[in-house]
Amino acid sequence: MSRRQAKPDASETKDAFRPLAVIAGNGSLPLAVAEAAARTGRQVHMIGIRGETDPAMEHFPHAWVKWGEVGKLFATLEDRGCRDLVIIGGVRRPDLAKIRFDSGVIRNLPRLLRLGLGGDDTLLSTVVRFFEEKGYRVHGAGEVAPELLACEGSLGTEAPSPESLADIERGFAVVEALGRFDIGQAAVVAGGRVLAVEASEGTDAMLARCAVLRREQRSGVRSGVLVKAPKPGQEQRVDQPTIGPDTVRHCVEARLAGIAVAAGLVLVANRSETVAAADEQGLFLYGVRLHQSSA
Amino acid sequence: MSRRQAKPDASETKDAFRPLAVIAGNGSLPLAVAEAAARTGRQVHMIGIRGETDPAMEHFPHAWVKWGEVGKLFATLEDRGCRDLVIIGGVRRPDLAKIRFDSGVIRNLPRLLRLGLGGDDTLLSTVVRFFEEKGYRVHGAGEVAPELLACEGSLGTEAPSPESLADIERGFAVVEALGRFDIGQAAVVAGGRVLAVEASEGTDAMLARCAVLRREQRSGVRSGVLVKAPKPGQEQRVDQPTIGPDTVRHCVEARLAGIAVAAGLVLVANRSETVAAADEQGLFLYGVRLHQSSA
Repeated sequence: MSRRQAKPDASETKDAFRPLAVIAGNGSLPLAVAEAAARTGRQVHMIGIRGETDPAMEHFPHAWVKWGEVGKLFATLEDRGCRDLVIIGGVRRPDLAKIRFDSGVIRNLPRLLRLGLGGDDTLLSTVVRFFEEKGYRVHGAGEVAPELLACEGSLGTEAPSPESLADIERGFAVVEALGRFDIGQAAVVAGGRVLAVEASEGTDAMLARCAVLRREQRSGVRSGVLVKAPKPGQEQRVDQPTIGPDTVRHCVEARLAGIAVAAGLVLVANRSETVAAADEQGLFLYGVRLHQSSA
Repeated sequence: MSRRQAKPDASETKDAFRPLAVIAGNGSLPLAVAEAAARTGRQVHMIGIRGETDPAMEHFPHAWVKWGEVGKLFATLEDRGCRDLVIIGGVRRPDLAKIRFDSGVIRNLPRLLRLGLGGDDTLLSTVVRFFEEKGYRVHGAGEVAPELLACEGSLGTEAPSPESLADIERGFAVVEALGRFDIGQAAVVAGGRVLAVEASEGTDAMLARCAVLRREQRSGVRSGVLVKAPKPGQEQRVDQPTIGPDTVRHCVEARLAGIAVAAGLVLVANRSETVAAADEQGLFLYGVRLHQSSA
């Protein structure tokens, strides 16, 4: 593709006029990113992973690849003239024994072998470098669709109490302390007590066990907060922490008072639905500028 | 009681000849501590909490108290001439609404009200201070029954591989980083990746979710390690981390290669049974001097 396109609006960067490939994992976020990017007038191509991506992506120009079809992936990007990528949505760890590798894998084998080592963060950073060294530009979802990022302050009608603000501060400190171990984007704190810390189980699983703990402790009053932030040094372009309507539902089940996220760094999937669910349940959704809260 | 007893053996401290009250929570450890202390020739009185303590304690001189019977507890200690205490075994958080408080509670109300605040650590430290300010000496289980503490190196026949030693080092670093938040005595690390971190759910619950994660990840080869250590600054006299046969069983279910504990700081309940179970399953049990490993 050509980078010498006309610039109809000086306030737009050149990026906004290049076709964008969205390499899409599971969940609703890939489609939300594609739709938000398309609303800015950008040409969007979806690349779905069989068994992961919502088939609803097919209303965009699209292609399907399977795990192991690395050659096909690059051929598709070439074919569509896409040098700009967003990699978004979750993936299950594939069963390596069942993958059929194409010739693109053989060519990239030394680099791909390194992908399996280290924590998630290392793996994702390696994926980004892999594309970058081949001349692709990898963008964060928030870059191409900033409307999806949590803003500062209350997102809905509820605001945190002073007690919740203290829990929020402690929660961000926990997440920060764990960052150097390449784990944890989330923790639950209630009344100053750290109820749970997320490692590799995911936020939903962590909230589910909080719900069990709160039932056992017979917690009547709703209190405590889910804190969610990127790990320090996290490859945010491909692994941005996200909340959505399910997060709200799980926080209600854990009898929490609200959710606090790092403003500008956490994606809100289905924002209108998420905020409506929180408002209906009396939960606060609160964005915090991290350099202020966890310093 | 008199502190001027005869000293039949110069290598013994005076402590060893004072009667010892074991305030016993649930599990097998209170009885193990009582038996180990009794084997040193010490007079042991058990104080059980209804609904918590194993009734097998009744083969020692004993008394039962209920939650809220603070006055009865002190009357019993007075009656038996016990100024030396061990507080050992788990307790469920009692349902405050169902407790019937005796006059001992009323007298101690201002202090007791503070017990509910802060993390577990704060609560237990307050319990210790509460007894100490009344002139009691609170001992750690390891002090009166050192045979129950994990020693350095391999406890059974298996030894950790170099890969496991790397996981062990990372695990101790995680636990250390979390110590300042008054949470977590344990973490699970496999292949350098932190699978799980314990907050308030307990080690067994953490291992149960690791078992689920490992099944989902189709982990064939047994790898990874449970690391267990005291929190920095933890009130170790009343909240000493413990492993036992159940820990081994849960680690097998999580397909871990072994268990590493802080030598001299972690109790091994039912040691012979624990070591036999680990040997039978090919799991290592490994004690690490913390000033060496996590510095």
